[in-house]
Amino acid sequence: MQKTVIGLDFGSDSVRAILVEATNGHVIASCVSNYPRWAAGKWSDASKSQFRQHPLDYLECMENVIRDVLKCDDPKRVAGIAVDTTGSTPCAVDRNGTPLALTPGFESNPNAMFVLWKDHTALQESVEINNAVKASPVNYLAYEGGIYSPEWFFSKVLHILRTDEKVRENAFSWVEHCDWITGLLAGNTNPLTMKRSRCAAGHKAMWHTQWNGLPPEEFLTSIDPRLAGLRQRLYTDTVTADTPTGTISKAWADTLGRPRDVVIGGSAFDCHFGAVGASIKEGCMVKVIGTSTCDIVVSSDVQKCVRGICGQVDGSVVPGMTGLEAGQSAFGDIYAWFKSFLSYGGDVELARLEKDAALLAPQESGVMALDWLNARRTPDANPFLRGAIFGLNLGTTAPMVYRALIESTAFGAKRIAERFQTEGITTTEVSAIGGIARKSPLVMQILADVMNVPIRVVATDQACALGAAMFAAVAAFIY
Amino acid sequence: MQKTVIGLDFGSDSVRAILVEATNGHVIASCVSNYPRWAAGKWSDASKSQFRQHPLDYLECMENVIRDVLKCDDPKRVAGIAVDTTGSTPCAVDRNGTPLALTPGFESNPNAMFVLWKDHTALQESVEINNAVKASPVNYLAYEGGIYSPEWFFSKVLHILRTDEKVRENAFSWVEHCDWITGLLAGNTNPLTMKRSRCAAGHKAMWHTQWNGLPPEEFLTSIDPRLAGLRQRLYTDTVTADTPTGTISKAWADTLGRPRDVVIGGSAFDCHFGAVGASIKEGCMVKVIGTSTCDIVVSSDVQKCVRGICGQVDGSVVPGMTGLEAGQSAFGDIYAWFKSFLSYGGDVELARLEKDAALLAPQESGVMALDWLNARRTPDANPFLRGAIFGLNLGTTAPMVYRALIESTAFGAKRIAERFQTEGITTTEVSAIGGIARKSPLVMQILADVMNVPIRVVATDQACALGAAMFAAVAAFIY
Repeated sequence: MQKTVIGLDFGSDSVRAILVEATNGHVIASCVSNYPRWAAGKWSDASKSQFRQHPLDYLECMENVIRDVLKCDDPKRVAGIAVDTTGSTPCAVDRNGTPLALTPGFESNPNAMFVLWKDHTALQESVEINNAVKASPVNYLAYEGGIYSPEWFFSKVLHILRTDEKVRENAFSWVEHCDWITGLLAGNTNPLTMKRSRCAAGHKAMWHTQWNGLPPEEFLTSIDPRLAGLRQRLYTDTVTADTPTGTISKAWADTLGRPRDVVIGGSAFDCHFGAVGASIKEGCMVKVIGTSTCDIVVSSDVQKCVRGICGQVDGSVVPGMTGLEAGQSAFGDIYAWFKSFLSYGGDVELARLEKDAALLAPQESGVMALDWLNARRTPDANPFLRGAIFGLNLGTTAPMVYRALIESTAFGAKRIAERFQTEGITTTEVSAIGGIARKSPLVMQILADVMNVPIRVVATDQACALGAAMFAAVAAFIY
Repeated sequence: MQKTVIGLDFGSDSVRAILVEATNGHVIASCVSNYPRWAAGKWSDASKSQFRQHPLDYLECMENVIRDVLKCDDPKRVAGIAVDTTGSTPCAVDRNGTPLALTPGFESNPNAMFVLWKDHTALQESVEINNAVKASPVNYLAYEGGIYSPEWFFSKVLHILRTDEKVRENAFSWVEHCDWITGLLAGNTNPLTMKRSRCAAGHKAMWHTQWNGLPPEEFLTSIDPRLAGLRQRLYTDTVTADTPTGTISKAWADTLGRPRDVVIGGSAFDCHFGAVGASIKEGCMVKVIGTSTCDIVVSSDVQKCVRGICGQVDGSVVPGMTGLEAGQSAFGDIYAWFKSFLSYGGDVELARLEKDAALLAPQESGVMALDWLNARRTPDANPFLRGAIFGLNLGTTAPMVYRALIESTAFGAKRIAERFQTEGITTTEVSAIGGIARKSPLVMQILADVMNVPIRVVATDQACALGAAMFAAVAAFIY
């Protein structure tokens, strides 16, 4: 019997499952479920850049999509599952690895929930971590681009430990979203023994073999004594996503109607799996263009520590190669912001804005923008930056500003490609996946013009999930 | 019989007439008429900063408002009329002083119409005039703040002479809006003999007694040979607004149903008359706050040439004192722009924006703006500047930006007061007139907070027209 695998892709707003023939990649079924609490705007406050997600959103939606895809085919054919999620999206857990928001008294506490990648509440903590690294004889950021971000694991952990005493007292350990889902499916969420993603640890938590895993206790406590003892309640080892992490738990086996021989693969962040789903290879940058961008490059010959990116990690994308990550902290989010901003006067459709903006020639309006509305991630992360719009006059219209915003995101992307180039990582091709890549021809044309490179738009809306399915097939020793 | 006088105030969008008891200032009647062609947006293009007004708009509306106020009282009581207009708002005229747009073949040619004060099409010409002054042994800008503006007389004249050959061939001379209306009422529009406003000439055309009137022929031709011969077809002498310029023409006497003994006073720009209407005195700045601002100060003791303002002219406000003018080239226009910008999604009311913006505390949103959407007039005119909005994040809302725009206009105003102070002209009081002053408590409160001075809002919507009436009474030797 031909085997199938399931790829699970947890995005910022929804989770997608795809069911795929394991040896030929044929997609049998695909299903998406939107996080209901998140869609209702609970526990988030954009004006404070606070973005939290409740674990029940993940659980309910995951069960929905797995059940849905399995309706289309014989569950007995399923041989493996692998998971990607956004990140760094950490959450405080108890001794059992249960997110605190699933424990009594914490159900509505945003500090007990997953802190979404784009949450920027930990600004101050990132500053202190960067200062601590500067004061340290070892550069624990050498493989993370040289600058620690408020979007990353330790910034967020420290921020919550500082601001919520009740969570601090009850947080035994912390998990990344991708670690937790994988552990849950494999039936082991024990924080001390569950499998931890190499991708998440290496790109966001300063994990590196050079210093035997996470940075040492004395470094972490030099940042804040509240971090004392945490290291030993986290992890030392990590696994790449091709590694089988176990077989399916009884509960989830029952949900699938399967015996417990389904292999659970290792996990990674969505863009890393997406790069694999989009057939990344050396010399080709895969840009995942959605609410933000994640730009992935692989190299078998990295000669140095690349400055100002989001890390270079052995095996974080393709096992045996170095995965390099960069990105813009807002891309489609900027267009969505402008739509929402303009809708003060009544609902505005992006399609109308795009049509009107397309009528303008480059430089016609004189309006320019800076795309730092969610600060800057790459190159040279700086969480304090904000967006700006210049060149306004009394004749400036909404489409002029919209076009300027598109151009600003394109020039932000160009800066990233230039940084890779100057650091010795040459890319000659660009492939694009993600919602914006498929939906906006104007954005993609301006991006190609500004970057001065042809861009191949990958004709799938599920490259990340497909990458997850590919890792599931590899982990299950089918492919 | 108690005499009455008429004050005529030509604003940017409409003309107002008021009929006033000449000895006590009691307002008998007031009437406003909106320019119909201007309201229809003809011949203007905000995206190019081109703003032109047809003389028929002025004529038709003036006749409407004069007829209307005279319905309320015995026309026989009228003893004088005086006029203010916007400026510099020049127009090409033929040998009879008729605006070219009123002559055959020019009816729809925007270059044959009045070039409204806020028209910025003459950018390049202002640069060349400034360069010519720098190259000249005499500083013809010493009494105009040191920088010539594209909003001013010679910039606009030269721009039209360069860009429209047909107008160049038919333009015998040029008039300011206030000169032409006054000449028309007094029955003498002959460009060589009509009375010219001291205010307009001194603030906008480099007129000064030190060099015997307008700058000399060789200076003007050093800017562009197309200006050759123009000086002698303009004027040497000017009159202050308290000067009687003649008695009413037969045509207008018939319109009023009066014999021809009505005195026509001298004219000035609207803000100068408005300052008088608002009881300006030494030490008090009168701010006329509408689409733009005009800031007027009078002094009997100016020791130097004040840098970066819009001129210091003997008698331009109060006879016997130096009138000093400054201003922001956009103020209410910025709020109107934002309303129009936002209305892409559906009609937005400024009242709603103001209400929502008032809920925000200073600095709460982090959004800041620069108020140069129509470039910068004072201090230190620079026609190349544009507006900007900074500090944007994904939570930035329309009211946040609206508040930032208000704050930007307030800080623009503060800069002007600071410049007067550093140049030795101290003001300890501020009086405000104009549409924004009366209509927007939020704007006025923020303005007072930022300038750190109490602001007296003058409780009239017709201070300029009232000032005109006062000059009419003086010119008619009644007061």
